[in-house]
Formats: sequence, C-alpha cells, structure tokens
Amino acid sequence: MTTRNFETNMLDVNFINIIDYLGTFAFAISGIRLASAKRFDWFGAYIVGLVTAIGGGTTRDLLLSITPFWMQQPSYLIVTGFALLFVIIFGRYVIRLKNTFFIFDTIGLGLFVVVGIERTLDAGFPFWVAIVMGTITGSVGGIMRDIFINVEPLVFRKDIYALACVFGGLMFFSCSLAGVPEPVTQVIAASSVILIRILAVKYHISLPALKGADDRKNLRKK
Amino acid sequence: MTTRNFETNMLDVNFINIIDYLGTFAFAISGIRLASAKRFDWFGAYIVGLVTAIGGGTTRDLLLSITPFWMQQPSYLIVTGFALLFVIIFGRYVIRLKNTFFIFDTIGLGLFVVVGIERTLDAGFPFWVAIVMGTITGSVGGIMRDIFINVEPLVFRKDIYALACVFGGLMFFSCSLAGVPEPVTQVIAASSVILIRILAVKYHISLPALKGADDRKNLRKK
Amino acid sequence: MTTRNFETNMLDVNFINIIDYLGTFAFAISGIRLASAKRFDWFGAYIVGLVTAIGGGTTRDLLLSITPFWMQQPSYLIVTGFALLFVIIFGRYVIRLKNTFFIFDTIGLGLFVVVGIERTLDAGFPFWVAIVMGTITGSVGGIMRDIFINVEPLVFRKDIYALACVFGGLMFFSCSLAGVPEPVTQVIAASSVILIRILAVKYHISLPALKGADDRKNLRKK
Repeated sequence: MTTRNFETNMLDVNFINIIDYLGTFAFAISGIRLASAKRFDWFGAYIVGLVTAIGGGTTRDLLLSITPFWMQQPSYLIVTGFALLFVIIFGRYVIRLKNTFFIFDTIGLGLFVVVGIERTLDAGFPFWVAIVMGTITGSVGGIMRDIFINVEPLVFRKDIYALACVFGGLMFFSCSLAGVPEPVTQVIAASSVILIRILAVKYHISLPALKGADDRKNLRKK
Repeated sequence: MTTRNFETNMLDVNFINIIDYLGTFAFAISGIRLASAKRFDWFGAYIVGLVTAIGGGTTRDLLLSITPFWMQQPSYLIVTGFALLFVIIFGRYVIRLKNTFFIFDTIGLGLFVVVGIERTLDAGFPFWVAIVMGTITGSVGGIMRDIFINVEPLVFRKDIYALACVFGGLMFFSCSLAGVPEPVTQVIAASSVILIRILAVKYHISLPALKGADDRKNLRKK
Repeated sequence: MTTRNFETNMLDVNFINIIDYLGTFAFAISGIRLASAKRFDWFGAYIVGLVTAIGGGTTRDLLLSITPFWMQQPSYLIVTGFALLFVIIFGRYVIRLKNTFFIFDTIGLGLFVVVGIERTLDAGFPFWVAIVMGTITGSVGGIMRDIFINVEPLVFRKDIYALACVFGGLMFFSCSLAGVPEPVTQVIAASSVILIRILAVKYHISLPALKGADDRKNLRKK
C-alpha cells in the first residue's frame, strides 16, 4: 500500500528511488536558494525547500483524497534536510553547479509528472484528470515557493515548464491508447517532458505573453 | 452521483448549466485580465483564470471531503479555455464589455453561493457550515487569483462581495426555516446575492475600513 | 467523535477550553491587527483573523483526512467575531496590551502544538508525522496570514517560533517513550514550547539567516 506503484512497475526500484531523491533534492535546492536571497533563516529556508519539493504531490494527493505521499515515509523530509546542509556548506559553489541542478530538476520533473499520472489512474480517475494531476505534481511546488517568498510565480512566465508537463501527459495517453507496454509508456512520457524542457531552455522557446485587456500600452497600433 | 443535486432540483437543467458556464466564464475572464496586466504568458493566464473560476468550489469540496466538482467532468477546463481564447482574440474590446462581465460575474456569484450551500447540506453539515461554504465558494477563487498575481486580495476591501454571499446564505436559511419549497428558496437566495452586489456597486456602499491597532495615523484625534 | 480527545484527557475540560479560546482569540487579534494596518475593511479583517486562528489546524486536518475541527462547532468563528469587536472598540489600546497578547498567543501555541500531535496520533500516524503536524498546527496560520496581507511570512525569519513547535513535539515523543503518563506528557510538551518561545523573545535568540547561493553580497570575505 505504501510503496508507490510506479516504483515497482518501471525499471529497477533502486534506480527510480535515486531519480526521485535527486529530483526532490534539486527541487528543494531551488526553494532554499530563493529563500537565502530573501535572507530567511535556516528553518524558514528548510520549509520553503520542503514546500517546493513536496507541494505539487501534496496538492495532487489532497485532490485525489489520498494520504499525502511524504506522510508515508520520512525520506522526503530527510532529503530536504540534506539540501539545506548542502546550501549552508557549499553556498558559494551552488551557483557554479547551476547546470547540474538544472539536469536534476528536469529529470525530477519528468519523473514527478509520470508519478502523478500513475497515482491518478490508480485512484480510478479518467485520463484528462491524470494529465492535470501530472502537471500539478510538476509545477505547483514552484508556484507555492514563489508565493511563500512573495514574488509573482515564475512558472506563469516560463510557460514551457508547465506545458512540458501537459505534453508528457498527452504522450502517456497516446502510448497507452496505442497499447504500448506500461514501463515503456512511462519512459517515453518522462523523456518527452525532459526533452521539451531542455529544448525550450536551450533555444529560449516560450509562449507569447498575453496582451490586451487591462494593459492598454501593449495593444498593437495597427 | 456526479450530477449536481442543484441542477436537477432548480428550474431547468439546461438553464442552470448555461448560468453555471456563464459564471465560470466571467470568473475566468476576471483572472485572465489581471494576469494579462502582469504580462503572464498564455498558459500562466489560463491557470490564473482556472483558479479564479474553480478555486472557491475546490476549497469547499476539500473541506467537505468531497471529490472536487471539476474533476467529474472536463467542462470547467474547457470553458476556461474559451475565456482565454476570448481575451487573446478580443483583448482590446474586453474593457468595453465590462458591464456585461459584471452581470455574468454577479449572476455566477449568486449561483455559486447556492450550489455551495446545497452541496454542504447534502454532505450532512449544519446550516452555519453551509453559509460559510457558500461564502467560500463565491469568494475564495478571487482571493487565490490575487495571491497568484501577488497583490493584496481585493475582496478584503470590497467587503460587500463576501458579505453578499453571507446574506444570501442567511436568506436561504430563513426560507428553509419558513418552509418555502426548495426551488423557490434557491431562487430567492441567489437573487438576494445578486441584488445586494448590484446595489453595493451602484451606490458605492461598503463597510468601514478597520482603524486603530497598528495604524497610528488613522486613530481619531478626539 | 466530535469532542477533541485532548480535552477529555488533560486536566479539566473547562480549563483547556478557556486556554483554547484565549489562544484562538490571540491568534485572531494578530491577524486583525495586521489587516487593520493594511486598511482592510471589517469583513476582510475578520477573514484574516479567522485564517490566522484556524489555518494551521485546518491544514493539519486536511492532510490527515479529518473533517476540519472548526466545522464541528461554531465557537471558533464566534471567538474570532469577539476579537474583531475588541479591535474595533479598543483599537487604540491594543498596542499597549501587546505583552498580554504575547502571553495568550504563546500559551495558545503550546496548546495548539499538543492538540495537533494528539489528533495525528489518534489518526494512526507515526510520531514523526505527529511532530510535523504539531508544527503545522502552530505555525501555518501565521504563514497564511502573511500571504493574505501580501508580506513575506514572518515565521521564516522568527525561526524560534516554528522551532519551538518542533522541540515541543520532540519532548512529547521523549516523554511518551519514557512511559510518562499522557496528561503529564501533554503539560511538559506544551510548557516547553511556551518556555522556548519566551526565552527566545526575551534574549533575542534566533537561528542564523541563510547565506550564499543567490546572495553574493553576503558571502563571507575570508
């Protein structure tokens, strides 16, 4: 009951666990870094890191009426503790490791989306709900982080982040529809999230900002 | 199970559906307009619109331990998509339609309050909880919208908004107590929300701002 | 079912009720004072006060899949109403009563932490979850208050606040492990929260702010 269905299905349990923890670590680091820029104390930084790492999955589990995943084993709290220690000790080097964290973060994102989809389908919901929940799992932690540190959520400007989650969900759906075996479907879905995210960042691809309505200055002058 | 009790009770299902969707559309437009003023991208604007439209009902359903209403059929996500399309295409005309949206928004508010009360009573809670839930259904979406775009929630200054919801709830309670048939009770409660809101906006009626405490400059000099 | 296990276990029911209401009153006052500084209207101030008082326990109950405590009896809404009345009438004296409210607030914090731990253990979760939930019960209301009035959460800078909750939880755990009778355990845990909080405020004890990462100017120049 308490083991994640995803872990036992796809590849080796240990390998998935490692990715899950690396993803959690990278998400937590992103929260702790922003908290440090706002001069939060250690405990405050820990909380922001934790919320960034588990906020998406917690929101998903509440909506699905499931006990939140991090209440079933303390590893997510411990991994976030290591992330805090890491920033305290290696603070000045964290910026140099930016690319490393981007990779962790992106692989974590791919995994989190697939975990979110799996848990939703297991709970008996249709596919469109699963795609929404995969996106919530991947992106709500970052939104909560930005609300906590009192800035406008970044994800609303870096659309490809959330959009990559939606696309991964659609790939999962298409593969399932086509009868692709589940482990392969999971790998394809996670990979497409990762690929889109990397391409978007590398080539600065983004959706247009919304014009009009309350923003008169931005109306085209045709 | 998945159809709303409200819809089958009151008047014609199609008519209620139309009001529900118009209300959702108007709530979503209000979120998308504010997101556009903050230069969010399309996807970010969609999310803010969606949260404005479904945030109140979702909070209510989580508190009642019911599966959130929008997870039972995709229509709310689709209506929000149309709202986004509308702002993208007709951005420059949205301001001119301000009064039209005010009407939709207000009728939606009246309906949402009644739906919130109904669902709470169906879940077996007493009337005072139902009045709170009606108010949450009507006003939490707007609070979440303002938190997302990082401004102080407007509803805390435009009191009559939330207060109209409370009044509608009290009307519902009084009518039920007096033995008024349910469909009539629903119409009276929704109408009183709508009426109070329109009168408050038309005649600039509002509750006083709170003085004192931390705000020395505003202490009366008697 | 609807009575709190804590109340019937520890000391006299009436005495606990009084502390519970004083704590709720003090938490609500802290929200209403900050809302008044932002010129919210009466209803907005009431909502901020209510969220400050019940936000932590509500988050805990949602995570535990329990019906939120304040939906079982209207007393928390009523106490918040009295807190609003108090600020409206005695606004200019509230600042002078600062120390009195600090005492109420701190005693309330101690109680809330113990109530949070009790409810979590009753729901069948292990001790580390109970400690997290005790901390959430004590500190999330203040975080929600600060998000609502659009400032950076204070608790992230006044670490000892949340840390006192964690310490109280550890004391509870240690006493239970040592076979100390439950009522005594509860008193010791609540007292240690109160003591740490008072000492931290009196001697200006706080955790260091996090340095490094995104904050180049704060890197040590050794």
